[in-house]
Amino acid sequence: MVKRLSMSDAECPVARALDAIGDWWSLLIVRDAFDGARRFSEFQKGLGIAKGILSGRLRHLVAVGVLEQAPASDASAHGEYVLTEKGRSLFLVIVALRQWGEANLFAPDERHSMLVEADGLTPVPPIELRSSAGQKLDPRNTRVRKVGQSLER
Amino acid sequence: MVKRLSMSDAECPVARALDAIGDWWSLLIVRDAFDGARRFSEFQKGLGIAKGILSGRLRHLVAVGVLEQAPASDASAHGEYVLTEKGRSLFLVIVALRQWGEANLFAPDERHSMLVEADGLTPVPPIELRSSAGQKLDPRNTRVRKVGQSLER
Repeated sequence: MVKRLSMSDAECPVARALDAIGDWWSLLIVRDAFDGARRFSEFQKGLGIAKGILSGRLRHLVAVGVLEQAPASDASAHGEYVLTEKGRSLFLVIVALRQWGEANLFAPDERHSMLVEADGLTPVPPIELRSSAGQKLDPRNTRVRKVGQSLER
Repeated sequence: MVKRLSMSDAECPVARALDAIGDWWSLLIVRDAFDGARRFSEFQKGLGIAKGILSGRLRHLVAVGVLEQAPASDASAHGEYVLTEKGRSLFLVIVALRQWGEANLFAPDERHSMLVEADGLTPVPPIELRSSAGQKLDPRNTRVRKVGQSLER
């Protein structure tokens, strides 16, 4: 990741979030943790990457408080990695990425994994952003108020 | 970005989304486009990075269809970059990251930019993921159905 965020970015939660996660790719580890992976070998199998790289990414996610280490659930000498509360709250980021991918990066008849409700069948509906009054929000009816910007319009 | 996604990942919209965006950092360009940046110089000013790096990232975002080039809105010889429909639909990804950052990466009294409604004052409420029946969803009451997985429980 290019670490040259300007001062103004430090006040931007988007920039800070990207900086904390460290690189894009680490989100696939978080995705696998949501899907039940706990052991190093499970993450490695799911992602198919070099052990050294995975090890560094896991260490980073522990350092920023997204994962925490837990004793092995069996007699194994190897610890496991579980999502913290902070890590679990990345759920909506993962779901937003998933839904963007589904809508934009697959041919109509192309098969892909699906997020389903507890019945195992019903596809999860698209995420919605609504105003405090319940109106659907999009980029046109929201704006970013920078720090120090006047409250007057 | 480490490009070693396994075959199964190719069927995962999360992995494909991460792969399309290319690197984390490119999302800050998308964020700035939502905030009104159009010219190369505006992106450069907002992000404070080397021109060569920004140029490569913009080219990538055009190649994947997130941005498109448009003629300059003034007499300038330089074109501008605008979000496509595909790019605009990254809005929820950016908002999810923003809300995660706000909730997890700032001290209670620390100032940060805010996403507000059209009145310029009301903070946008947290994104919600609801089931088709209107129930609030979280990682515990959803699961990912892999391609080829039986529909039976």
